[in-house]
Amino acid sequence: MSSKPSIPKGTRDFSTADMLKREYIFETIKQVFRLYGYQPIETPAMENLTTLLGKYGEEGDKLLFRILNSGDYLSAVGDEELKGRDTTKLSSRICEKGLRYDLTVPFARYVVQHRDELIFPFKRYQIQPVWRADRPQKGRYREFFQCDVDVIGSDSLLNEVELIQIIDDVFRRFKVNVKIRLNNRKILAGIAEYGGVPEKITDITVALDKYEKTGWENVKEELISKGIKDSAINEFGEIIRVIDKNNDEKIAFLNSVLINSAVGMEGIMELTTLFELLKKSDLKSEVVFDLTLARGLNYYTGAIIEVKSVDVSIGSICGGGRYDNLTGVFGMDGVSGVGVSFGADRIYDVLNSLNLFESTVSASTAVLVLNFGDSETDYAMKIIRSLRSIGVNTELYPDQVKLKKQMSYADSKKIQFIIIAGEDEIKTNSVTVKNMSTGAQVNLSLDQLKTFVIENIRPV
Amino acid sequence: MSSKPSIPKGTRDFSTADMLKREYIFETIKQVFRLYGYQPIETPAMENLTTLLGKYGEEGDKLLFRILNSGDYLSAVGDEELKGRDTTKLSSRICEKGLRYDLTVPFARYVVQHRDELIFPFKRYQIQPVWRADRPQKGRYREFFQCDVDVIGSDSLLNEVELIQIIDDVFRRFKVNVKIRLNNRKILAGIAEYGGVPEKITDITVALDKYEKTGWENVKEELISKGIKDSAINEFGEIIRVIDKNNDEKIAFLNSVLINSAVGMEGIMELTTLFELLKKSDLKSEVVFDLTLARGLNYYTGAIIEVKSVDVSIGSICGGGRYDNLTGVFGMDGVSGVGVSFGADRIYDVLNSLNLFESTVSASTAVLVLNFGDSETDYAMKIIRSLRSIGVNTELYPDQVKLKKQMSYADSKKIQFIIIAGEDEIKTNSVTVKNMSTGAQVNLSLDQLKTFVIENIRPV
Repeated sequence: MSSKPSIPKGTRDFSTADMLKREYIFETIKQVFRLYGYQPIETPAMENLTTLLGKYGEEGDKLLFRILNSGDYLSAVGDEELKGRDTTKLSSRICEKGLRYDLTVPFARYVVQHRDELIFPFKRYQIQPVWRADRPQKGRYREFFQCDVDVIGSDSLLNEVELIQIIDDVFRRFKVNVKIRLNNRKILAGIAEYGGVPEKITDITVALDKYEKTGWENVKEELISKGIKDSAINEFGEIIRVIDKNNDEKIAFLNSVLINSAVGMEGIMELTTLFELLKKSDLKSEVVFDLTLARGLNYYTGAIIEVKSVDVSIGSICGGGRYDNLTGVFGMDGVSGVGVSFGADRIYDVLNSLNLFESTVSASTAVLVLNFGDSETDYAMKIIRSLRSIGVNTELYPDQVKLKKQMSYADSKKIQFIIIAGEDEIKTNSVTVKNMSTGAQVNLSLDQLKTFVIENIRPV
Repeated sequence: MSSKPSIPKGTRDFSTADMLKREYIFETIKQVFRLYGYQPIETPAMENLTTLLGKYGEEGDKLLFRILNSGDYLSAVGDEELKGRDTTKLSSRICEKGLRYDLTVPFARYVVQHRDELIFPFKRYQIQPVWRADRPQKGRYREFFQCDVDVIGSDSLLNEVELIQIIDDVFRRFKVNVKIRLNNRKILAGIAEYGGVPEKITDITVALDKYEKTGWENVKEELISKGIKDSAINEFGEIIRVIDKNNDEKIAFLNSVLINSAVGMEGIMELTTLFELLKKSDLKSEVVFDLTLARGLNYYTGAIIEVKSVDVSIGSICGGGRYDNLTGVFGMDGVSGVGVSFGADRIYDVLNSLNLFESTVSASTAVLVLNFGDSETDYAMKIIRSLRSIGVNTELYPDQVKLKKQMSYADSKKIQFIIIAGEDEIKTNSVTVKNMSTGAQVNLSLDQLKTFVIENIRPV
């Protein structure tokens, strides 16, 4: 094979520079999750297809990566069936397993499977890759990471408050300004009731969700195409006109409009309580009530949350909501949960465009000891051992090559200091330290070296 | 669906308790890797099958998990071919991708694909899961993690020294006593030459590798069955008899026996140099020269390294060696590399059996604030904000349930302190703190609380 090898489309290699940035993102998020009492779990990359199928709609089923059974995978498939070439049907005969599509369904499966071992309310976070056979395009990958945080087994609104605090805390640490949009599925149900078409709630929310992007005329057209009557559409038009008012005004308006919808009033009460608690939460981010927010997902039953960067236009970088029956499909009813998911890839892009990554280089090598040859090796190894013993990331250049080449290695790896420990230094039991950014050199005893390095290394 | 959902056999869910232990393992290993100047990369879970096939032998090919192509995966398969039911052939028509089987081949692919961006010597580590369709059994999983550390593009023996220092450092941190066994492929080649059967090196090393487990009689039988002549077998028997001597004696003996084998003498020289450098490396672990060590892998060309726990009998927990042409198969010749892989699952088992995990609980929640109801919520949230602001992992119990239930939650989650902030405490602007292990209670002002918690929380 002489042509360059490659990787499947839509997947990525992460270089060391990428990885240090990504670890900074994951570590920051993890630290906040733990600060709020959430703990990690992990589930296998492969799930049984019985767990995954039917959970993401027909389109989602098509986007599942299926794993071919091992051994004679055709043994149970008859000739007629084979000749039939029904690929959908056949794939379920020759594949039992698939790669996980998100972290939510595996989490629901986990909760049901381990219900007897878990302590409820169960607060967990999960940071793992997911796979989707989507058409790859800019910013959309077939393998990408999700960072999910959920609490299950509690219907207190304090959980919603906490998740919004987490969002605020995470992006404060990243120094990224965000706008948090909130809605409540019950308000959407109330609006559908108000229009006299409660059964059309899905069509209505899907259409309203596009208001920000496409404007009222397009939403109207979509509603018409879904067979929603004119009187209802007019009423939705009236409601949507309050979208530019402030949170209190919007809530007050809906409070009067939805007065006859029990579910709508419940939604408004929840939202009111939530905003009251948030006002006392010392948040940095702006939180707005957006009654068009639906996030397309039918399983939300209460709060709906979405986060966007204020300074970079890139779609939502975090989102989630409350779901009252996620585990029901696995035979465990009446368990309410709420959670959000951080999009690591988009956060990476935001931090990159805002140039907010500088502090992460600290994880790389700080000191390179040059290699002068066999007779100097013992001395070099001694220096290195002493630096590593105080936690300084140190390398010895392994090969006996020209010093110029060794220096250029240090330069490319952005190593801060090089140490010259040749014949002269060995004689005087010292080292020469060169600062790679300033070029300044200084001769130090071995004791002085430790102090020097501790005082001059970039803070970790 | 009413039966409990499950996961594919050979895969595992990791609970929060497992995860905290596993993270301790990965973090410790990572920290050492970085201390020695290695940096992380990651590659996709899916590789093209052209990258994977033929790299692990015929048996390995069978153990690859293959991913069914999306869409009409049968479109290019003719009726005759379908009827033929040649599952091996068919699978390469309907699957283009597979899950990675180890981290070594993806690493070689990575180096070749990104050769122009890399700085050589390239020192990388990689900690990711791999998948094998092996028959699951105790301690063998279909999804498991490897922690690989390699340097590529340098043939200096200082790299071998460094890797052994890394092994020593990692297990010193884990407080696990290990024995490091070393061999050199060139010595094995020399032994085959000495027996006059250089072409049988693979058969010989495979047989010798079993000496420790099965004894000389069985090795002898295997050698006979491979058609190796009696005179050679007798000579191997002579060599193997030095196995109980010390390193210097073994080397001296082979030095005389292999005197006419150029490759054998080269191997002895390398091993001698390595041992000399290791003597000055202040290692805690015992390092022994074991001339039966082969590790079955044909791609090793120089040093071979294997690590076992001294106190727990569980097989090798780390191993690796030098390979001179791993990238050759992808069209990039003449690049030498050396690396080792840590087995996270077995290390987990070792730490568990030796009860060495206690320090990891620090990652969990330290303080639970009890929930007394709506009118106490503001006060509780204020306390929590103040504790989180100094980095203390703190939770508010979200639901208004009986205090007994809240206390038992704290108990199950091994939370150190609970905070009682009811009507009385609010009146006096104080909190009551209860130590969950001793039962001791103390009333503190909010300022005192911070100091108290900082002084009393388990060290992180």
